[in-house]
Amino acid sequence: MPAPTAALETTCVNVVRGLAMDAVQRAESGHPGMPMGAAPMAHALWTRHLRHDPSDPQWPDRDRFVLSAGHGSMLLYALLHLTGYDLGLEDLKAFRQWGSRTPGHPENHLTPGVEMATGPLGQGLATAVGMALAERSLAARFNRPGHTVVDHRTFVICSDGDLMEGVTNEACSFAGHQRLGKLIALYDANRITIDGSTDLAFTEDVGARFRALGWATWECDGMDVDAVDACLQAAVADPTAPSLIVCRTTIGYGSPNKAGSEKSHGAPLGRDEVLATKRALGMPEEEFAVDSDALAFYRRALEVGREASRAWGARLSDYRAAFPAEARELEASLAHDLGRDWYGALPTFPEAVATRDASGAVINALAPHLPGLIGGCADLAESVKTVIKGGGDVQPDTPAGRNVNYGVREHAMAAIVNGMTLHGGLLPFGGTFLIFSDYCRPSLRLAALMGVPAVHCFSHDSIGLGEDGPTHQPVEHLMSLRAIPNFNVLRPADGNETAACWKLALESKSTPCALILTRQKVPALSPALPTKHPAERGAYVLREASGGRPSVVLVATGSEVGLAVQAGERLDAEGTPTRVVSMPSWFLFERQDAGYRSETLPPGVPTVSVEAGTTLGWARYAQAHVGLDRFGASAPGPTLYQELGLTVDAVVAAARWLLDRG
Amino acid sequence: MPAPTAALETTCVNVVRGLAMDAVQRAESGHPGMPMGAAPMAHALWTRHLRHDPSDPQWPDRDRFVLSAGHGSMLLYALLHLTGYDLGLEDLKAFRQWGSRTPGHPENHLTPGVEMATGPLGQGLATAVGMALAERSLAARFNRPGHTVVDHRTFVICSDGDLMEGVTNEACSFAGHQRLGKLIALYDANRITIDGSTDLAFTEDVGARFRALGWATWECDGMDVDAVDACLQAAVADPTAPSLIVCRTTIGYGSPNKAGSEKSHGAPLGRDEVLATKRALGMPEEEFAVDSDALAFYRRALEVGREASRAWGARLSDYRAAFPAEARELEASLAHDLGRDWYGALPTFPEAVATRDASGAVINALAPHLPGLIGGCADLAESVKTVIKGGGDVQPDTPAGRNVNYGVREHAMAAIVNGMTLHGGLLPFGGTFLIFSDYCRPSLRLAALMGVPAVHCFSHDSIGLGEDGPTHQPVEHLMSLRAIPNFNVLRPADGNETAACWKLALESKSTPCALILTRQKVPALSPALPTKHPAERGAYVLREASGGRPSVVLVATGSEVGLAVQAGERLDAEGTPTRVVSMPSWFLFERQDAGYRSETLPPGVPTVSVEAGTTLGWARYAQAHVGLDRFGASAPGPTLYQELGLTVDAVVAAARWLLDRG
Repeated sequence: MPAPTAALETTCVNVVRGLAMDAVQRAESGHPGMPMGAAPMAHALWTRHLRHDPSDPQWPDRDRFVLSAGHGSMLLYALLHLTGYDLGLEDLKAFRQWGSRTPGHPENHLTPGVEMATGPLGQGLATAVGMALAERSLAARFNRPGHTVVDHRTFVICSDGDLMEGVTNEACSFAGHQRLGKLIALYDANRITIDGSTDLAFTEDVGARFRALGWATWECDGMDVDAVDACLQAAVADPTAPSLIVCRTTIGYGSPNKAGSEKSHGAPLGRDEVLATKRALGMPEEEFAVDSDALAFYRRALEVGREASRAWGARLSDYRAAFPAEARELEASLAHDLGRDWYGALPTFPEAVATRDASGAVINALAPHLPGLIGGCADLAESVKTVIKGGGDVQPDTPAGRNVNYGVREHAMAAIVNGMTLHGGLLPFGGTFLIFSDYCRPSLRLAALMGVPAVHCFSHDSIGLGEDGPTHQPVEHLMSLRAIPNFNVLRPADGNETAACWKLALESKSTPCALILTRQKVPALSPALPTKHPAERGAYVLREASGGRPSVVLVATGSEVGLAVQAGERLDAEGTPTRVVSMPSWFLFERQDAGYRSETLPPGVPTVSVEAGTTLGWARYAQAHVGLDRFGASAPGPTLYQELGLTVDAVVAAARWLLDRG
Repeated sequence: MPAPTAALETTCVNVVRGLAMDAVQRAESGHPGMPMGAAPMAHALWTRHLRHDPSDPQWPDRDRFVLSAGHGSMLLYALLHLTGYDLGLEDLKAFRQWGSRTPGHPENHLTPGVEMATGPLGQGLATAVGMALAERSLAARFNRPGHTVVDHRTFVICSDGDLMEGVTNEACSFAGHQRLGKLIALYDANRITIDGSTDLAFTEDVGARFRALGWATWECDGMDVDAVDACLQAAVADPTAPSLIVCRTTIGYGSPNKAGSEKSHGAPLGRDEVLATKRALGMPEEEFAVDSDALAFYRRALEVGREASRAWGARLSDYRAAFPAEARELEASLAHDLGRDWYGALPTFPEAVATRDASGAVINALAPHLPGLIGGCADLAESVKTVIKGGGDVQPDTPAGRNVNYGVREHAMAAIVNGMTLHGGLLPFGGTFLIFSDYCRPSLRLAALMGVPAVHCFSHDSIGLGEDGPTHQPVEHLMSLRAIPNFNVLRPADGNETAACWKLALESKSTPCALILTRQKVPALSPALPTKHPAERGAYVLREASGGRPSVVLVATGSEVGLAVQAGERLDAEGTPTRVVSMPSWFLFERQDAGYRSETLPPGVPTVSVEAGTTLGWARYAQAHVGLDRFGASAPGPTLYQELGLTVDAVVAAARWLLDRG
């Protein structure tokens, strides 16, 4: 195909600008300035480098493109439409409207060709690091000499705001350490944020920072397609380090009165200004105009993309012939098909064990059967028990390792786990102390919104951790994680529940899961049925009342189930038939049928909740609560349970109080 | 006083090491390695630079010292004891025990001389930036030629882990931009983290990164007191930029078998190894030994400190004579005495208004009366309405400004607001969208633990924000913030409640407050009584049922109070006497006496909660719920309220369902 003329490319870029301006104007809200400034860099990337197949958005070996500056969503929607994805002009005209596929910020679960939801700044670039890490891991595992079946890049467009966010620095320090050479970020350096010039708050030398982090950097006039292309070529040619291309741009380019100003950032330009801009850029004035030559040029992506994915299919066929076992594994991995061979490997736990240790045992029992299982921890691997023994570390020289050393970077870890999971082909999990789930929270929420089944091990889950004190003792974390829609908090009571919870987490298709684990030992209480454990229903009767008709129910989770069982035995012995319900997952219990729910927690029967965390929320299931509505303290764990009232006596007293109240 | 001999200084450093080893060993848990490696740098700082008065830990003009690497708490406790703070050897022997003043990680509210709680990595350094900013602000406001009454430095010891955390990069980029020359951080570069060598995950060039951020950097042998001192002298002499001194250290220094290894990081050395270490260092073997010459040398701090604070007192007297009005203002500020003159300036709101706009009006009405009020926002000042008009920006050339441009750095903002509040003398507040409170969360929690009355404006508080979509629409945030102990979530229903909530927030002594504000207009519903508004009790009857005896109660917050009032009117008109309770603060309501609580929300009367957020938690007060247990969507706000069931019809239907259920 002949190279386009410069005039045609200018038209192309202006078509993108026009669609962005018009869609925002029609919606009467949105962010026109970013797409108008970033259109040239996006054009250079999408027409000269990005390898993708608009007719098959899920083609596994596509390059990933992440618009970290998600407020510029119209840039992405315009390119998806123009290059031939299933996204019509009608979709663009429905920008930001109820039921449309063009929401205000990109959402991967709504729109073909969108790799992830972005908008909360920093998340895109940090998540892209995970995509690049997954690609390298799979390439190292599956490619063979003469057979390259995994080979793609991860491209990002990010903004000043992205680069101010801490999660970006965490993730980019990690990427630099890992030398992720196939990660390339275009920095839309328009020097404008919502409050005005970056001179107000952001005067660091970004390029120098990224070089200090181990990145290769380039800088160019971002309004010049060829200049951006030259930097992209150089970045692509350097496989030794991730690349940051600093593109100097003008926000709202073309707008006579708003270019270069924050006024073009977060609101429609206004009808008159849109017209004035179109005139200034030499564009037709009609709304949603798409020049036919520009469209034809962009639509070449369909042909080029089909050819690329066809060629990959042919390579895969050759691979299948030469390496049938590896090919089967690769295809199963990409289909997220775990099979069930690993069920038999799930261990059982006849004795008392800390659930973090049980979790470590499950991980190591499953690792040989689930080769995609790739763990990691934010510098607490020995404490959280996330290490896959013999799996080796994921390092630049050992990219096929199975243990990721995230460093003390909890937030980036959660974003990177999202990115690896989104990429596909792996079963990644992260780990840290439950208290530090607060650091991860923006990425955990995004996983829930995107329907990404990321898995995290959060250990040291209560005041039971003891002496490290209240800065390390979660109190509100269980409930505040449960409050996130589509997020499954799994708090097993013993080793057997831990195995069952791991099974649930690995089989989750569209819900992120957190395994909440103890530092301290808990007694063995539940049946050894790892593949069909009653915990799979979220809550179940662990101990039935004598006579089978409870006068009182104790509902507990995790390490407090043992307390509840002891209290139940005492109450029962003293003549009060007492049922104990273990409730590892509110999320799953609330998805059971009403019959099961009322059989398990019978309405009208006095119920006491027992959990070493805030009682807020438990009124849904209980009328009296043994919990912790204050910060913990620094002392040995058993002392804290005693002093802060998490005792058998307290549970018995709460039950008696409830029964007396009538 | 004569300079100490090198031998005496070695003894001093070893005394610190010995106390750290012994206390950890006795507690059978803790972190001995960090104090053993960082003792020389701490000695250089505390004996040659830190200006403090152990007999008056609250002396306002003291240098601030923050141990960002809070796990090294025994380093700090040893120095506090040795230099003469009210912390005895018995306290050190009670390290990490119930009721002691020496918890596992430092807690300012427990221990004299501890400036803040640290432990969650990154928080210390980020918070110290706020302390340094507060000092500069007060110095600019109060010092006069020949009268320097505010002049102190902020020193930090931080670790590899601190420097990996994203919040550190955010805060340090901000500090570099602000050229906070009196902020000096000693980096304990021991190259060891919990999982092993920093080669595993942290190979960036930290010094180069900090230079890119605008810091001055030095590097030295951190085991050499004189070398550290030389760098400190250089850093102190350079007022143009914050300073990072990279001190190369050996973790667990002196331990024959564990020095330089992660084995000395997070567990006692073991009795034998403690003895072997003491022998290797030429120390006496007895536990908690304090060489008398070393003690005498450290205790010089008492005399030096008393003289320094006395001299400051004399300067303050001179200042009082020369500038009586300024002196009164300074002393009132330092005493956090706001007076009540500003009550009269609280505005009233007779008409519909977005509560973010009401908040902006309150801020600007109060600003002339509360000169310590210093606002700021994470790049959303015009949206969250945090700007103090005419107050000017806080910039290096205008340090007395009243608006802080935090950039897109929500987490650092929350930490810096903590630091400014801890410093004293100011009434700082931050601002961002409620959705981004997730980014702030670790610092918000720390404020609650420390009892720091930090204030945040979190606007765009529900799906009501509309088109920006679910990445920007809070759902679970109200409840997850309420779950934090000692955290006051204030969600006003209208302009008058907004004024009342601001009053509560400003008068809070030891509880952080979040004002939760709408983007959209809400009707005027509540009385114009800003200084004695019923909202001050947390919840109150906004609309009484006809006849005064409610058959049903609707309890609502914020923008949903208007919905509840409309529903109440309809129900009442249809013959169901309906009370509407506005509940801006669970925190305050739960601190009212039982009588008020049961008068307001009568037990036994069917109650419906109405809030545009997760229903989790509302079972405490209601038996039916109108809320949102899913993510939002991108569409105009009114459409979302309709489509997602937050309507008058839905509230009426919930009430009828509840009444029918009986």
